[in-house]
Amino acid sequence: MKNLLDIYARKKRDIAAIEKELEETVYSDHSLLRDTSIHLLKAGGKRIRPVFVLLSGEFGSYKLQTMKHVAVPLELIHMASLVHDDVIDDANTRRGQLTVRSKWDNRIAMYTGDYIFARALEVITQIHKPEVHQIMSKAIVEMSIGEMEQIRFFFNADQTIRDYLLRIRRKTALLIGISCQLGAIGADAPEWMSTKLYNFGYNVGMAFQIRDDILDLIGTEKQIGKPPGSDIKQGNITLPVLLTMKDPAMKPMILTELERIHKLDGQTDVSRFLDLIRGGTGIKEADRLSQCYIDKAITALDKLPDIQAKKDLIEVAYFIGNRSY
Amino acid sequence: MKNLLDIYARKKRDIAAIEKELEETVYSDHSLLRDTSIHLLKAGGKRIRPVFVLLSGEFGSYKLQTMKHVAVPLELIHMASLVHDDVIDDANTRRGQLTVRSKWDNRIAMYTGDYIFARALEVITQIHKPEVHQIMSKAIVEMSIGEMEQIRFFFNADQTIRDYLLRIRRKTALLIGISCQLGAIGADAPEWMSTKLYNFGYNVGMAFQIRDDILDLIGTEKQIGKPPGSDIKQGNITLPVLLTMKDPAMKPMILTELERIHKLDGQTDVSRFLDLIRGGTGIKEADRLSQCYIDKAITALDKLPDIQAKKDLIEVAYFIGNRSY
Repeated sequence: MKNLLDIYARKKRDIAAIEKELEETVYSDHSLLRDTSIHLLKAGGKRIRPVFVLLSGEFGSYKLQTMKHVAVPLELIHMASLVHDDVIDDANTRRGQLTVRSKWDNRIAMYTGDYIFARALEVITQIHKPEVHQIMSKAIVEMSIGEMEQIRFFFNADQTIRDYLLRIRRKTALLIGISCQLGAIGADAPEWMSTKLYNFGYNVGMAFQIRDDILDLIGTEKQIGKPPGSDIKQGNITLPVLLTMKDPAMKPMILTELERIHKLDGQTDVSRFLDLIRGGTGIKEADRLSQCYIDKAITALDKLPDIQAKKDLIEVAYFIGNRSY
Repeated sequence: MKNLLDIYARKKRDIAAIEKELEETVYSDHSLLRDTSIHLLKAGGKRIRPVFVLLSGEFGSYKLQTMKHVAVPLELIHMASLVHDDVIDDANTRRGQLTVRSKWDNRIAMYTGDYIFARALEVITQIHKPEVHQIMSKAIVEMSIGEMEQIRFFFNADQTIRDYLLRIRRKTALLIGISCQLGAIGADAPEWMSTKLYNFGYNVGMAFQIRDDILDLIGTEKQIGKPPGSDIKQGNITLPVLLTMKDPAMKPMILTELERIHKLDGQTDVSRFLDLIRGGTGIKEADRLSQCYIDKAITALDKLPDIQAKKDLIEVAYFIGNRSY
């Protein structure tokens, strides 16, 4: 978190304004909703989406008031989807904090997600541009299909790399893509710019998720805020695993481990599985693909004017591609 | 259902068009989402919200295409909230059909709700009127607060009648109110008309929910599509119960029953409880209050032009106040 803040120290004041707006938006007279929502906000996160909104807005006529009304809903939609995901994943911690479902219960998590999502919609109505609502709602539909889709692939060793890429597209890349796009549209930047910025965000999002999935395999609990191997315990087979399984010498051993973990419903030590993957070439190959997405992202910015925001976007992209937390 | 259709036979063709649009809207290439969504649609429902949109639209310049884009999201938002409610209520049947959570599971029900809700948002973006989005999103926030709020009052015998009324306002009345309002706004009716129509719908909605809660106590399983007493099994203390408890002779017996049912988490025969309530005056008093809301609703229409839609709205209101299913 600190590193990233250093990178975009220039926008610190506006990011703080958005942080305040996030809190005010989810504030409720209802004490339980207030508690669960504030718990979620305080658990932090990198606020990548708001930062991308702000930086993309600089390609048009930047007004903080408008940027807030774009950035806050995007971050809240992200948060709402995380709470619902935690229910599916039986996740107990996220970012080193107890999840809503573990601190309260699954039902409260479901309704907290509904509430935060509703608040997000309320804020975005302040933007009176039909295309903003259309772009956002289409992304939300895709995200919700992705949510359901992931269930189908839990512990499914027959899935292809394409299945994985489509999943992370819906889960992560689309929302980051439209964060850039809507930031630009909100600031009345020309359409060709908002499209380029979408491409930038989309590709950064793909890299971001791949990096996330790598970190789940090689990071320490301190770095990633949850025990390593959480993905496979939930049945989530990620890119490094799929790539490692391409090696005929590795595949049978991984399948045996997968089957064992599946049978025990993830309630087991997964260090043998982690050792297997760490011993193969999948992590390195996944990292290479992630770097390709970063390169694509940066190329998408080529024709955009060389303002400070462009340099910042590039820096954030490099940070994301190499982050270890 | 048939009775209601008789009442608004005049709009049959347009209602059929909306039914078709509902199906097309939730259609997905994703087989599980398609199955769960179509299951929900086929389980039926009275389609009160679309009917109110259509009738209210006749006070302006009625265009079916626009009406569809208002009616479909409102019905879908209603459906999405029902699926999430079924998760909270552990409900196994609704309208005589298995619920999504019982036919599939709670997680699939949660994501089906998210998906249907997302589809609703996608459709409403076709309406380019900021006030439509603002009215809708505010109602959705209230509904989501109401969802969480109901948990707090499960088996809570200290709640007041005001608590109950606030709950059904959020749960039911607001969405029916805005169905009328947005139907009128969608058809460019003047603001004073859409406000009157909101008042009509809101009061009908209050009556509707009170009637629903009465039917849960006095209806047969065939009439109400779920076993009678379902509310109290879930801990939902409704108006007739609260009114009956005002009688000092009844209160201790009801409290004893409530405590027993609570201890057994609703997994028990509730016929003694039903007999107690049926033997008191609470049902009759609740019915009287419901009739007051119907009267208020009809009064709200006073100054509106005497077109056929007004007669139809009045008829639907009377139907709702007296329905036995």
